[in-house]
Amino acid sequence: MCELLGMSCNVPTDIVFSFLGLSERGGRTGKHEDGWGLCLYEGRAAHVYREPHPCASSPLAAFVRENPIKTTTALAHIRKKTRGQNQLANTHPFIRELWGRTFSFAHNGTIRVNRKVALSRFAPIGSTDSEWAFCYLLGRLHKRFGSTPPSRESLFAAVSKIGAELGERGSFNFLLSDGKVLIARCHTKLSYIVREHPFSHATLSDADVTVDFTQVTSPRDRVAVIATIPLTTNETWTTLQPGNFVMFSAGKVVAKT
Amino acid sequence: MCELLGMSCNVPTDIVFSFLGLSERGGRTGKHEDGWGLCLYEGRAAHVYREPHPCASSPLAAFVRENPIKTTTALAHIRKKTRGQNQLANTHPFIRELWGRTFSFAHNGTIRVNRKVALSRFAPIGSTDSEWAFCYLLGRLHKRFGSTPPSRESLFAAVSKIGAELGERGSFNFLLSDGKVLIARCHTKLSYIVREHPFSHATLSDADVTVDFTQVTSPRDRVAVIATIPLTTNETWTTLQPGNFVMFSAGKVVAKT
Repeated sequence: MCELLGMSCNVPTDIVFSFLGLSERGGRTGKHEDGWGLCLYEGRAAHVYREPHPCASSPLAAFVRENPIKTTTALAHIRKKTRGQNQLANTHPFIRELWGRTFSFAHNGTIRVNRKVALSRFAPIGSTDSEWAFCYLLGRLHKRFGSTPPSRESLFAAVSKIGAELGERGSFNFLLSDGKVLIARCHTKLSYIVREHPFSHATLSDADVTVDFTQVTSPRDRVAVIATIPLTTNETWTTLQPGNFVMFSAGKVVAKT
Repeated sequence: MCELLGMSCNVPTDIVFSFLGLSERGGRTGKHEDGWGLCLYEGRAAHVYREPHPCASSPLAAFVRENPIKTTTALAHIRKKTRGQNQLANTHPFIRELWGRTFSFAHNGTIRVNRKVALSRFAPIGSTDSEWAFCYLLGRLHKRFGSTPPSRESLFAAVSKIGAELGERGSFNFLLSDGKVLIARCHTKLSYIVREHPFSHATLSDADVTVDFTQVTSPRDRVAVIATIPLTTNETWTTLQPGNFVMFSAGKVVAKT
């Protein structure tokens, strides 16, 4: 199994605090040692860092934490492999271009791949069930909407429909983003929090680190963070129920089913 | 204008020596300060580092040089913008998946975009002529070969045909790779060298650095390096002629027109 982390904000924010919590679980406080990845959007493009190595001891992950990039949308993953070897091609998040946007996808769980389905529009580079599901999902979106990108409401409805179908094939917790919205599906475990004015302080579960958000925010800031297991000990996270889909944009929940 | 760098090897090799030479031209010995990018293949997947900042002073570029990743195929670019703003979406190399492989592309020159052509299969994320050309080229390859990847000879013939057509629209020096082969086109300026046994030493033009390749190679190693302007002062580089296409694989020239 794996762990997921996503962030959506209304002003560019760095993900260092949350990513540090996740990083610790990638080989130190958790056994997700088979790889890590981080996607930080800059408009419709993204910085993507991925390694098939433990995040907790990765010099690149440390570099990224020490040289933070502010972004309004981010997506991260630490891997404990179930299907597919320990190599870069099998490391989340997976990336594809559709409608001139960078789509990123990370999955927690295992699903049965349907080899009978022809994947013509997007093809897997590696051998995971996760990348297969991403290629299938994007191919279906392209088939549904053609070359014209849908509204975010239509995108959410389509992703919810296709995601629920894929969910019947196993365990399918995922995060999907195009840089503007962040869509999450809970199959077994996923929680989120929206931090906004009045801000307080937060303490990580996995490292002896506390941040006083009143010192690093302005009253109009809003930051949503979603993770497989809550990253902080002194905040109230909202636990999603199996089958729930939620869409974030600019730091708030804009759709939920 | 910009500068290109590519490498093809028969055993995994780090690109640090050549990339250091190129990096210096990204704001120190050269004025290519509008961005840099580096693509290092691991099988059909790739590590991609890109920033819309000068390479010579980039902490990330320094990190990549200090924590080298060995690869058999690499592609790099430093940017001096002609079309498109200074942002990540306009930073080379551009990346797309086709046939379950990671294709990367970097361009030096400027071409006239043909807005009348519909780009349905691959769409630009940014606003450069370069990314438009890459999307057009890959779309034509997909149209020509469908979902079945061609032999490398057929790929080279098709890229040469489409690349020559695009070359009529302006200046079109480029590097294209799928991780197995590296295809280059010279429009104005591009030179390459194949280093093999017996190895010697080489001194960079842009930094006071000399490497004794006899100390870091075995007799069976073979490394091809291609660059806009030769990176070393004491080696004989082969200068390509305008209109030439060359394909490298496993450190040697496997096709040339």
